[in-house]
Amino acid sequence: MTSTAVSQPLVTRVEGGITAPRGFRAAGVACGIKASGAPDLAVIASETPASAAAVFTTNRAQAAPVVISRERMAQSKGRMSAIVANSGCANACTGGDGMAHAEAMTRLTAQALGCAPGEVLVASTGVIGVKLDIEKVAKGITVATAGLAANGGAAAARAIMTTDPFPKEASVELTSARGGFRVGGMAKGSGMIEPMMATMLGFVSTDAAVEPHLLQRALDAAVHDSFNAITVDGECSTNDCVFALANGASGVRFDDDDYPLLVEALRQVCEPLAIGIVRGGEGATKLITVRVTGARSNDDARRAARAIANSPLVKTAVHGGDPNWGRLVAVAGRSGAAFELDGAAVRIGSVELFSDGGPHDERSGEAAEYLKGRDIDIEVNLGTGGQGRSRMWTCDLSAEYVRINAEYRT
Amino acid sequence: MTSTAVSQPLVTRVEGGITAPRGFRAAGVACGIKASGAPDLAVIASETPASAAAVFTTNRAQAAPVVISRERMAQSKGRMSAIVANSGCANACTGGDGMAHAEAMTRLTAQALGCAPGEVLVASTGVIGVKLDIEKVAKGITVATAGLAANGGAAAARAIMTTDPFPKEASVELTSARGGFRVGGMAKGSGMIEPMMATMLGFVSTDAAVEPHLLQRALDAAVHDSFNAITVDGECSTNDCVFALANGASGVRFDDDDYPLLVEALRQVCEPLAIGIVRGGEGATKLITVRVTGARSNDDARRAARAIANSPLVKTAVHGGDPNWGRLVAVAGRSGAAFELDGAAVRIGSVELFSDGGPHDERSGEAAEYLKGRDIDIEVNLGTGGQGRSRMWTCDLSAEYVRINAEYRT
Repeated sequence: MTSTAVSQPLVTRVEGGITAPRGFRAAGVACGIKASGAPDLAVIASETPASAAAVFTTNRAQAAPVVISRERMAQSKGRMSAIVANSGCANACTGGDGMAHAEAMTRLTAQALGCAPGEVLVASTGVIGVKLDIEKVAKGITVATAGLAANGGAAAARAIMTTDPFPKEASVELTSARGGFRVGGMAKGSGMIEPMMATMLGFVSTDAAVEPHLLQRALDAAVHDSFNAITVDGECSTNDCVFALANGASGVRFDDDDYPLLVEALRQVCEPLAIGIVRGGEGATKLITVRVTGARSNDDARRAARAIANSPLVKTAVHGGDPNWGRLVAVAGRSGAAFELDGAAVRIGSVELFSDGGPHDERSGEAAEYLKGRDIDIEVNLGTGGQGRSRMWTCDLSAEYVRINAEYRT
Repeated sequence: MTSTAVSQPLVTRVEGGITAPRGFRAAGVACGIKASGAPDLAVIASETPASAAAVFTTNRAQAAPVVISRERMAQSKGRMSAIVANSGCANACTGGDGMAHAEAMTRLTAQALGCAPGEVLVASTGVIGVKLDIEKVAKGITVATAGLAANGGAAAARAIMTTDPFPKEASVELTSARGGFRVGGMAKGSGMIEPMMATMLGFVSTDAAVEPHLLQRALDAAVHDSFNAITVDGECSTNDCVFALANGASGVRFDDDDYPLLVEALRQVCEPLAIGIVRGGEGATKLITVRVTGARSNDDARRAARAIANSPLVKTAVHGGDPNWGRLVAVAGRSGAAFELDGAAVRIGSVELFSDGGPHDERSGEAAEYLKGRDIDIEVNLGTGGQGRSRMWTCDLSAEYVRINAEYRT
């Protein structure tokens, strides 16, 4: 999805996460949803109403906050002032009470900030099927909104964690022909669904001025190549969402011609956040980058890449350091993508193990050595002679994944 | 797919496996493909040319024996006299030599039996990307064809095993309005792909007289509800096939009106063979029967059932004895099937844990107790009010699965 037409902006990593862009404040507090007393409520606020874009889970079992945030987006025409999010409880499969609680979270946050409830997005992550203690949440919103700070990104990032082994933040400053602006973000996620813990959340802020329709288009493109290009276990939860807010505080204004620059800017933050989710995947010991080339179309390439990235046999082989190219051929062949065995090729690292319909097993020792590393590149050429390509990130499958998911509640 | 119109035949389990029906002989020998010296070559022969039907892998990376057997089926108009199969080597990704070897297996078997090469089907299972030692295979065919016996089913079933923990055979005698006849069968499979070991194979014989077109239609239906209704890890190999031979030796003749009876007869053998594959799945400790009801169509139900049966989170939860209904709701919701949360329900054994949009967690102790068993029933109602339903079988996901697949070659 990266346009070749975009003149690359100068990108500098900066501190601050979601609050790195000007005009954003955030807070993260512990309000008692989690029995452990860990932070569990985050508020992110823009000083002025911001353009907003959102990507929601495609799961048909949608949690109450997803339903409410969808409604808010539809009614607001893409103008939002704040996001309120909690961890420790997904508020999913919670019936009418759940809807009332999600609505209350937006209303209470709006009251504290002096904006309309329709200008607040809500997200939740945690156990499915358990109701929120709305009294505790209300107190948390009071404390968090009172404590909003221009350096509150790190606290907010911690407050949305569930079983994540580390918080995930990213922020950059971009120097472009349009001027300088910043993009920041935070995310959580470990398994696509934890043991009854739902989900992946991602929040992105920018101080560029962007109309909502353009922000939405760019967010869709950036998410396609980042959050939608990762998999831990092929699952997709009831609560997944990614929100972006653009408040224009930098004075840098984008129009439709700047679309490639905007996508690139969002991707600069979304990609490391997405990779962070995979690195922190349940039981993960290796980050695997799957590249598929020689496909009839990019969609076909994505289909094959997704099948490989989700294959338990590929993931266990990488875990065990086994350069098992036969599994890669077999998975590509069953993926539904056009596939020509005679032209296909498999590369692990820089070691070509299969090409022109035949194996090069004499190099498997070399590949096994490479697989001892922590960052593994795998490339499969589908052999159709087409130009389609795709890239996805996944992690290995370890006995620890099974332990985490089998023993969590027992 | 079971027709309610079929008057149930009297079914009696009998011994004999693939050779239980009259007029079939089989043999299994060790010809040295496996370094261990275990049996690795099987021949199944009908005394007279039989009607034949075949179902092949949908994987686009097709092994040489799959390509050759497809050609044989297309050219023979569904008349076959024998099947030759080897384990220990998949003859997949082996180029022109592989094609010549698969063709030679049919030719050598035909010579020994005195039939045409076009009347012999061939199948292979084992390591991908390794060539057959055709000299050894040729000697094995000589020995096996000389040793064909009317009680050779058990030896043949052992000779197609790879890492299967036990051989899989089934045979029944059916007493119907049409008269008495028998159906027998054998299968192998453990992971959908083993560590470089490919595959699931199934062979079915009957002494009923059935025209090839009817046999094919009935085999497709029986396979849909048996071999295609199981999953160990969601993989699909380069070598999968199921062959059926009907030689008419019982004198019982079927016409198109008997289609429901024929499907039922084949299913009587295919279903236990398929369940045997799951019970012997890599690292499996429990057999899980997934039932999906309340779907808009049977196809939708199958889609949801397949997603649940392949979900690592569901499979690890069952392994750990955790009645985690939230995962079942989330997987059904992401499966692509129509899903209505308000009408959905989840049952583990006879314990309803979720219905009418709300949980019944007060019963989760009961469900946890039930999950200690070895045979687990799970039912998910998709809540659409539709009549669509489907059933699939899978196994739990254990750390042993990871160990088998990560450490096989290291």
